[in-house]
Amino acid sequence: MDYTAKLDEALTRLHDEGRYRTFIDIERKKGHYPHAVWTTPEGDKRDITVWCGNDYLGMGQHPVVLAAMHEALDATGAGSGGTRNISGTTVYHKRLEAELADLHRKEEALLFTSAYIANDATLSTLPRLFPGLIIYSDALNHASMIEGIRRNGGEKRIFKHNDLDDLRAKLEADDPAAPKLIAFESVYSMDGDFGPIEAICDLAEEFGALTYLDEVHAVGMYGPCGGGIAERDGLSGRIDIINGTLAKAFGVMGGYIAASAKMCDAVRSYAPGFIFTTSLPPAVAAGAAASVAHLKTDQARRDAQQTQAAILKTRLRGLGLPIIDHGSHIVPLIVGDPVHTQKLSDMLLMDHGIYVQPINFPTVPRGTERLRFTPSPVHGPKELDSLVRALDELWSHCALNRADLAG
Amino acid sequence: MDYTAKLDEALTRLHDEGRYRTFIDIERKKGHYPHAVWTTPEGDKRDITVWCGNDYLGMGQHPVVLAAMHEALDATGAGSGGTRNISGTTVYHKRLEAELADLHRKEEALLFTSAYIANDATLSTLPRLFPGLIIYSDALNHASMIEGIRRNGGEKRIFKHNDLDDLRAKLEADDPAAPKLIAFESVYSMDGDFGPIEAICDLAEEFGALTYLDEVHAVGMYGPCGGGIAERDGLSGRIDIINGTLAKAFGVMGGYIAASAKMCDAVRSYAPGFIFTTSLPPAVAAGAAASVAHLKTDQARRDAQQTQAAILKTRLRGLGLPIIDHGSHIVPLIVGDPVHTQKLSDMLLMDHGIYVQPINFPTVPRGTERLRFTPSPVHGPKELDSLVRALDELWSHCALNRADLAG
Ligand SMILES: Cc1ncc(COP(=O)(O)O)c(C=O)c1O
Ligand SMILES: Cc1ncc(COP(=O)(O)O)c(C=O)c1O
Repeated sequence: MDYTAKLDEALTRLHDEGRYRTFIDIERKKGHYPHAVWTTPEGDKRDITVWCGNDYLGMGQHPVVLAAMHEALDATGAGSGGTRNISGTTVYHKRLEAELADLHRKEEALLFTSAYIANDATLSTLPRLFPGLIIYSDALNHASMIEGIRRNGGEKRIFKHNDLDDLRAKLEADDPAAPKLIAFESVYSMDGDFGPIEAICDLAEEFGALTYLDEVHAVGMYGPCGGGIAERDGLSGRIDIINGTLAKAFGVMGGYIAASAKMCDAVRSYAPGFIFTTSLPPAVAAGAAASVAHLKTDQARRDAQQTQAAILKTRLRGLGLPIIDHGSHIVPLIVGDPVHTQKLSDMLLMDHGIYVQPINFPTVPRGTERLRFTPSPVHGPKELDSLVRALDELWSHCALNRADLAG
Repeated sequence: MDYTAKLDEALTRLHDEGRYRTFIDIERKKGHYPHAVWTTPEGDKRDITVWCGNDYLGMGQHPVVLAAMHEALDATGAGSGGTRNISGTTVYHKRLEAELADLHRKEEALLFTSAYIANDATLSTLPRLFPGLIIYSDALNHASMIEGIRRNGGEKRIFKHNDLDDLRAKLEADDPAAPKLIAFESVYSMDGDFGPIEAICDLAEEFGALTYLDEVHAVGMYGPCGGGIAERDGLSGRIDIINGTLAKAFGVMGGYIAASAKMCDAVRSYAPGFIFTTSLPPAVAAGAAASVAHLKTDQARRDAQQTQAAILKTRLRGLGLPIIDHGSHIVPLIVGDPVHTQKLSDMLLMDHGIYVQPINFPTVPRGTERLRFTPSPVHGPKELDSLVRALDELWSHCALNRADLAG
């Protein structure tokens, strides 16, 4: 058995399809976001502006977050030293869970090391709690949900993205007595479109299904307290399990679910992905708690982010650049093939000091390869202007299509 | 469908079997490990000594680790702001991966958010890289390995714990041409016994199998540079993939594999658990890198830990207490039923300020319920003496069996 040859094959496949990923090595400068230093493969250092991060509100450099982290480091040290059950539950974890339960107006919240593992562990454990559970999963759900749903070989139905008729048809086709769960997202991060939360809750009620909502790209960003789209639309009470991250708008790391006390207790007790791993460092929990608490009242920051996104979209649309706009904070610009997308990304980085990662298949469908911009309150008019000018220039240079200017 | 009733059922099952877990809420005091403050369910604060943490060397409070974390926080902020591919690869991650590759004398290392996800993601991805792969898995492998091996429904064979004959028989029973991998641990954390690394490598060679070694409880602890048991025994070169954690002896958080450049590149490119999640906070990576670098030369700390473990074992054995001793740093004391184990743990905490979590089924087989002590260089003679006296007293009080004193 020639294992190396097999690895070569696997890697060659990616190169052949133009999907081989090279990581860009950067260091953001605290107090100077979105500016960062890029270390080139040759080891040179160059100043760049990050336009593709998910620290949507710049909370990663917020003084209240950093103060909380420094303080926790000084008080209690680096790691937690254990799993949640074996010496790794601290006052920092408990405080953060209380903060998150309050954020979503749920009885409890349960912390995981990431929203990835929160999705994976929870969705793979629910069939053990509800034997015979059928999971109805939106076709564009995130990889972490897909992995969780697939893990234990439970029953699943994939419904067409945001397609209520298809979802209804699939619900109708199944045994009315079977336990059911509908799993979907509030903001789909690659198109920036929204899930039809209310209509899905209506269907769930009609068919006696539980609802599971990934608010990873919405928490901190939407709703009067940053509780996400469900909070904004007054629907949190109709969602059984809300999933969120502490690593995007909250600027730190970690993930969670918020749900009823019993649901959290059962997942806590049965999910290997929760039980058998070291808990988050207390300093990380402390920073995240400070961020969540802060964003409960800092509506100005959310507004500023939306304003930046609106300006960027208006300006790109004014130049006829084919952006997708569903009214969310994410600004995808469709290029349409992997080679051009990579080329544009390279030229932006090399010639303009603008860093935006190309998004290719399988993350998005072939033919919709794109650049995905994430404006934030720390992207000022100067950064915005540089980006728009660079894109305009490159778009002409590469003779790429512009949309109908009226479009 | 009454979902709440189902949750009640699931939770009642745990209560009935005496397996319902209540988390102890603690805060370790930096500079005063192993001392910590316990917040009781009533909200009182009590001083305790932690005897069940996995920060085996007390690195969580080491000045070089904390300085590196403070520094990174000041330089770059809280979170990484992205997945490894999309703006979340930083100089801190690269430096840590280089440090880890060097530690294990491998071409490369690949960071994950935990060793749990490193095991799960890698072991579930290998069958995609080597179609038809059969994984031979030690019966006592950690939950994270089991989850990874089970995930995609690939071929697997469970061999009896540390049983080379059984492993050989299973290897012999399969198609000689099939790709194979043997997955095992160097230190099994609940008994503290060692995996037969050299003999397994011999079998792997004979049958053309890859080797996958979880060194989670050994990295930092064994070997002249803290490279684990494989380093200590001069066998690193014969292990294809080494898995380790940054959350136990290294005192911070995160996990990794170390392997050939091609293996790391392929796992990096194909594993959803690596790709679709925010990378570790730079400060966490910085702290872990400082810890790994420090422990490459701090043999005194490793020696001190082994000395503490030896003293504790000698004293407990001297009192006839039924410890398991395989010569590792872990000191399990068998109680033998869940009720007594919980009771002892409660009394140690309430009456003696000693915190050691009971270990029950399914973590260990029924009838072998135990207390698992983890002495460290920060446990001084005073703490050790208090523990031994408390155990002696409780053992008599509860009229528990003592082993044959000659045993
Ligand atoms: C929709 C969605 N869910 C979950 C995750 C995972 O979050 P985390 O980075 O906390 O693992 C991501 C992205 O990382 C995501 O886009
Ligand atoms: C053998 C073994 N492997 C892996 C892990 C997971 O490590 P981590 O805490 O980094 O997720 C653990 C314990 O947590 C373990 O005991």
